[in-house]
Amino acid sequence: MLTHDIPIHPAAQQVKVAVDNCIFTVVEGQLHLLLIQMTRVPYRGMWALPGGLIETHESLDTAAARILSEETGVADVYLEQLYTFGHPRRDPAGRVIAVAYFALIHAAGLTLRTQPKYADVRWWPCAHVPQLAYDHDDVAAYARQRLERKLVYTNVVWSLLPRQFTLSELQTVYEAVLGRPLDKRNFRKKILTLGLIESVGATAMRGAHRPAMLYRFTRREPQHIAML
Amino acid sequence: MLTHDIPIHPAAQQVKVAVDNCIFTVVEGQLHLLLIQMTRVPYRGMWALPGGLIETHESLDTAAARILSEETGVADVYLEQLYTFGHPRRDPAGRVIAVAYFALIHAAGLTLRTQPKYADVRWWPCAHVPQLAYDHDDVAAYARQRLERKLVYTNVVWSLLPRQFTLSELQTVYEAVLGRPLDKRNFRKKILTLGLIESVGATAMRGAHRPAMLYRFTRREPQHIAML
Repeated sequence: MLTHDIPIHPAAQQVKVAVDNCIFTVVEGQLHLLLIQMTRVPYRGMWALPGGLIETHESLDTAAARILSEETGVADVYLEQLYTFGHPRRDPAGRVIAVAYFALIHAAGLTLRTQPKYADVRWWPCAHVPQLAYDHDDVAAYARQRLERKLVYTNVVWSLLPRQFTLSELQTVYEAVLGRPLDKRNFRKKILTLGLIESVGATAMRGAHRPAMLYRFTRREPQHIAML
Repeated sequence: MLTHDIPIHPAAQQVKVAVDNCIFTVVEGQLHLLLIQMTRVPYRGMWALPGGLIETHESLDTAAARILSEETGVADVYLEQLYTFGHPRRDPAGRVIAVAYFALIHAAGLTLRTQPKYADVRWWPCAHVPQLAYDHDDVAAYARQRLERKLVYTNVVWSLLPRQFTLSELQTVYEAVLGRPLDKRNFRKKILTLGLIESVGATAMRGAHRPAMLYRFTRREPQHIAML
């Protein structure tokens, strides 16, 4: 640490920093959001995003992963920072800004467990999420919007699909995330122009249909399209 | 305000919250970044992004606009939140997390002025930015990367162009932001598929060339492409 004479101004700043996690998955063709149930006033009985205050010397990414693991049992997830929410009255306990994190994960086989200070932890279908504590309705809505945009210019759904998949299987995942059907011809044309997937050069039988071409993601890690 | 019994835990959290502004423009065909010069140890003489601590009851957006105006004279800018930087040792004065904001603006006619606590304020060509104070090299690099991505899927450059422009004029702005030449045919093909611009249905003379088709942005406000 360098010696210095920088005053932290204003000395009286009274702000706390928290992280909130928006964790999505697709179960039975529906987008779901991971929520915990509060036990304390004023939010007793209400559901909230898994979140909490960071430790003074902890990085934001580390805090998000620690808190997610402690409050839900979900670990080893690639968390991406989403947006920082700072409405002055977003938390009745005082001024708390919340750095929101995001992930879309494959949830099959995960065991959820929470801490005694929460009543429950559960995947909620996004179509039926109840009113959330704090400003978490806004945070969750923002996360869904970002997720929908990511469908267009990133390979965000890669973790939800096997290594090789048909365009129909890919479309089913896109439709689950968007919560609406997509036109098959239009979807195929658009998705193939994005450069996110490539043909495997083989076909597979899927049910009683004709053999379908198999595809894979160009990269099985976060990737942006590059069109210029 | 509701009555409540939520403890702010850990009570000992000692974290301050700041904002940092990454303000870009294009001057003489080159991308520039707005910087202030520090006067205090340990960064005396070094340049930094215009930034500072938020007030306890001030929203993040308000703080970013206030601090930008106070430190540079630049006001009435649409600031977009970029990312929050939280490395535990990014500020030698203590734990400070910084919410970074971003804008690409039309700077012609703007008068820069700073406060007595800074030595200078200036537009720096991005190709020649010196080593910056704090972690601002990382923040500026991240902002440039985001700006380059925004060229692909948003109308981020709209403020740098007149209401009607030729594809050559648009390409010149894209090349200035990217800092590299683009293939003319490829650029035209890609940009027209994005849906961000539309033909005006008229032509204009540009220098000694043939009349060129005029285009306009579909919207003169932030817009994302929608491809699904």
